[in-house]
Amino acid sequence: MTDHGWGDRLLVVGTGLIGTSVALAVRAAGGDVLLADADPRRLTTAVAAGAGQPLAAGDENDVDLVLVAVPPRRIGAVVADHLRLMPNAVVSHVGSVQGLPQAEVESSGADIVRFVGGHPIAGRELSGPVHASADLFVERPWVLTPTAASAPESVEVVRALVRTCGARPTILDAAVHDALFAQLSHVPQLVASALAGSIAALSGSDAALAGTGLRDTTRLADSDPDLWADIITANAAPVAAGLRAVAEPLLRLADDLDQASGQGDAVRDLLERGRAGRGLLPGKHGGAPVEVRLVQVVIPDEPGALARLLSDVAAEEVNLEDLRVEHAPGQPLGIAEISVLPTAYDRLVDALARRGWTVTS
Amino acid sequence: MTDHGWGDRLLVVGTGLIGTSVALAVRAAGGDVLLADADPRRLTTAVAAGAGQPLAAGDENDVDLVLVAVPPRRIGAVVADHLRLMPNAVVSHVGSVQGLPQAEVESSGADIVRFVGGHPIAGRELSGPVHASADLFVERPWVLTPTAASAPESVEVVRALVRTCGARPTILDAAVHDALFAQLSHVPQLVASALAGSIAALSGSDAALAGTGLRDTTRLADSDPDLWADIITANAAPVAAGLRAVAEPLLRLADDLDQASGQGDAVRDLLERGRAGRGLLPGKHGGAPVEVRLVQVVIPDEPGALARLLSDVAAEEVNLEDLRVEHAPGQPLGIAEISVLPTAYDRLVDALARRGWTVTS
Repeated sequence: MTDHGWGDRLLVVGTGLIGTSVALAVRAAGGDVLLADADPRRLTTAVAAGAGQPLAAGDENDVDLVLVAVPPRRIGAVVADHLRLMPNAVVSHVGSVQGLPQAEVESSGADIVRFVGGHPIAGRELSGPVHASADLFVERPWVLTPTAASAPESVEVVRALVRTCGARPTILDAAVHDALFAQLSHVPQLVASALAGSIAALSGSDAALAGTGLRDTTRLADSDPDLWADIITANAAPVAAGLRAVAEPLLRLADDLDQASGQGDAVRDLLERGRAGRGLLPGKHGGAPVEVRLVQVVIPDEPGALARLLSDVAAEEVNLEDLRVEHAPGQPLGIAEISVLPTAYDRLVDALARRGWTVTS
Repeated sequence: MTDHGWGDRLLVVGTGLIGTSVALAVRAAGGDVLLADADPRRLTTAVAAGAGQPLAAGDENDVDLVLVAVPPRRIGAVVADHLRLMPNAVVSHVGSVQGLPQAEVESSGADIVRFVGGHPIAGRELSGPVHASADLFVERPWVLTPTAASAPESVEVVRALVRTCGARPTILDAAVHDALFAQLSHVPQLVASALAGSIAALSGSDAALAGTGLRDTTRLADSDPDLWADIITANAAPVAAGLRAVAEPLLRLADDLDQASGQGDAVRDLLERGRAGRGLLPGKHGGAPVEVRLVQVVIPDEPGALARLLSDVAAEEVNLEDLRVEHAPGQPLGIAEISVLPTAYDRLVDALARRGWTVTS
């Protein structure tokens, strides 16, 4: 029996991407995991992935911790059910919205002393148990939203689970969480969709003239509409306020442009404010921003060219902080953008040029 | 004397990123290039980069083609000046906006038979001659906006220059161009800035909870405010219309969310429309969308790990269509996202697993 700080047996309810990833992380740490899902095929997939065993009748009293990983609309009811069904278990969830399920659990009459809401800040554009990974939460933030009614021991149990997953627990009030994630996540989703939607009537040949900027700005618009409709309606008021904070300055600017003052001050103000906000964002993975420098190298379109480049980078004992390649099929050239720490920049640029690479920055 | 189809001697006015990149491409093709810039340091940098020789007194009559690569606000006047100064030259430009400079040239009284506006769809977040590259335009679209007054021979001259740069010429009416690029480029820029601006008042620790979605959606907000203020005020009416097409649906949705109908239909409609628009976008580099599949591989944080992975990919004779690595310093693991053609997917996943890599998709 391993002491994880949260007990011995975890039940994950909902074996999608997040639930299965938590299960895999706990299994990797030697924990015992039971799985439940309304969809038997998804459950079978998660079991086959090694995420745990299906919950069986009689297991109810042996569960120490329940993690509810179902769509936002159903979280409150599923949490309340498990607080009743499993009298010895602490119950948490992984919803993108905290206030609504908290209110639902509180009004259910269930034992809220054992309830602690939570939200791991991790995910992928791909969903389902086949895309789950034990590493999904490593070094990512994981917000917990205990109430005054939550027992300190319940909070400690969930915090221990977060640590087992390699994540960093952060305590926030549910309302503060919801207002913040409206701004950081829910509003950007809708803005990306509105922007992508504004070109929906273009012809394919006109849209083909778009550059990479529009592609990046609208990437979120690929997300699952049903899941996001659920998240956004569960956090309606903060999202509405956040939408206005983005859309109203754009409409004011449109009016200003129509008046043809021609000075561009209103445009410049909006752009400057955008740079200020942008400066607050973490560099990657939610960690602190890291200053890096970009080395751009031309790579020929042939198998192995990029590997040869990266072998050369490694031979200089330079570690890549980030790497991006844009490489269109059938084109003679691609560009590798290698991010390195500033201290390694000059050395790498010199070394690559010496090794015959065309360095364009 | 090489026959490029555009003559022998190109004058590039404005040696920033675009102008210098055109000069480098023409030089690489064996063409003769003269350079001019109001900023002597920028001119010196471009000459040092091998982009050509400074324009000297007496050169005026030997120039076949002038490419004006100055900020949008100054294009019209600089084009008109060169039509007058260089009576044998066709004059084009590379502005992001076509209608305003065209109107300015037409009202200047200059010889508009030799004028053809143009806009290469290429660029980088970095600016200035040091970041220029002869490859910048390879396989990229380059829009030309001749008027009824432009001589067919003038259009052919500019089209030949575009081909010398490796780009694909496309003819559009100036007004059509400006309406289209308001939607594809200018509005996305402002939307990204408004979104980034909406989080400008957050604390650093709150903003650090943002995921990669907000980072991608706001990447354009890093752009140069002065340049963009200039572009946007030069294309004010189409940009104003495009801003309303994005912002008004967001405000309608905010109102709907405040009425707490709770059905989520309005949200779902906006998200679905976003997916439709997103489906029109090219995959990369402005080329046609290519269907790819994503292979995600866990990579240890050590010099050479990624090169080893890519050597293994190359050993299977699989060509990378795209590659992205997210790799935070000090963290034990990163994820490489390798895009491959669907026909190579199964073979690659099997081979990498056999070679000991952890493939998470």
